[in-house]
Amino acid sequence: MRIDIITVVPDILKSPFEASILKRAIDKGHVELHLHNLRDYVTDNYKQIDDYQFGGGAGMVMMVEPIDKCISGLKSEREYDEVIYMTPDGERLNQKLANKLSLFDNIIILCGHYKGVDQRVRDHFITKEISIGDYVLSGGELGAAVLCDALIRLIPGVLGNETSALTDSFQDNLLAPPVYTRPADYNGWQVPEILTSGNFSKIEEWREEQAYLRTRNLRPDLLDEYEK
Amino acid sequence: MRIDIITVVPDILKSPFEASILKRAIDKGHVELHLHNLRDYVTDNYKQIDDYQFGGGAGMVMMVEPIDKCISGLKSEREYDEVIYMTPDGERLNQKLANKLSLFDNIIILCGHYKGVDQRVRDHFITKEISIGDYVLSGGELGAAVLCDALIRLIPGVLGNETSALTDSFQDNLLAPPVYTRPADYNGWQVPEILTSGNFSKIEEWREEQAYLRTRNLRPDLLDEYEK
Repeated sequence: MRIDIITVVPDILKSPFEASILKRAIDKGHVELHLHNLRDYVTDNYKQIDDYQFGGGAGMVMMVEPIDKCISGLKSEREYDEVIYMTPDGERLNQKLANKLSLFDNIIILCGHYKGVDQRVRDHFITKEISIGDYVLSGGELGAAVLCDALIRLIPGVLGNETSALTDSFQDNLLAPPVYTRPADYNGWQVPEILTSGNFSKIEEWREEQAYLRTRNLRPDLLDEYEK
Repeated sequence: MRIDIITVVPDILKSPFEASILKRAIDKGHVELHLHNLRDYVTDNYKQIDDYQFGGGAGMVMMVEPIDKCISGLKSEREYDEVIYMTPDGERLNQKLANKLSLFDNIIILCGHYKGVDQRVRDHFITKEISIGDYVLSGGELGAAVLCDALIRLIPGVLGNETSALTDSFQDNLLAPPVYTRPADYNGWQVPEILTSGNFSKIEEWREEQAYLRTRNLRPDLLDEYEK
């Protein structure tokens, strides 16, 4: 998969892709990541990429032209499955959407900053608007990093043990059951006996029950999907 | 505000705090950020912080002891308002929760990695579990960065123009209206006439209407709260 991220602050995105699973996915060739600094697509000397908003009001707005140049340039080189804009009023990211996006070949992710992008960018260049949650961030960069992480780890071969992603929360509309590791007794706090019993079919039963109980307790809304 | 982040991959978190608004908030003294590498709290030579899970299954689990040492050490030095664990089955972050957390003095954020932390950590050390959305990430680090961004920008003085955060999406349970900047005509795509009219009371009316329409169209669930 090739991911092109367009941003005015590429520096924010450096370290998330230089460590852990995302780095390994890139090193192993599962993902090709390209960061584009929007300022490189500006022709004037001031490298201006934003301006005051029409009608007045606080906050700067990102201009159409540099974004047009960057996106149009990329699209002239290859086909893209989606041109995504990270925005709090977009479609909310969930595991199902991450699964779907992880199958694409080429995507562009545009990060807004300041007050957001000129609406004409959204009307004419963007094919999908995604929100990572109901809160406002200083820019789309962290949202883009979250989106990349959520979908890159689903690409086959990226995680060492493929079953690891399959037993995550949400994959079957249940939250994950509690997990424990050594020591079995810490400060008098014991691991549930069943987990050290060696009876794997009972353990599986216990885990399913715990996953169900936790979901009913914390996120009953997910059960509607699960019970379908 | 002082934020202590506990992680096994502190490198992931470097660049988000070294650029843009988060860096300025730290430089101006609004926020004091401390990253703690969990491996520094391990006594054995292998710097082991995780182990296989009891009962078998894919994925490693983070052990209680290093986390205990790190959290207990911090708590012996000062009072914390919350010890937060980033997890997909936690309380979902929204703007209301971000507003509330932005008023705290000291918080600890524990980032899970691999298959998560030993359940006994959650039972005995964590006071609040937060999820940034219904999807799974390779670790809690990006979630922690998102949480920090969402709340730090709300601390008075962090954003240049304080009205900027007040007009964001969600602050009044409405999505933000569309924004436009120069040029008024780009490729024949025009800015709505009202915005260049100079009639500011009409512009305010138009923006409120647009915010309402966009919310009704994209997120009707938010209107229930708005209309209360």
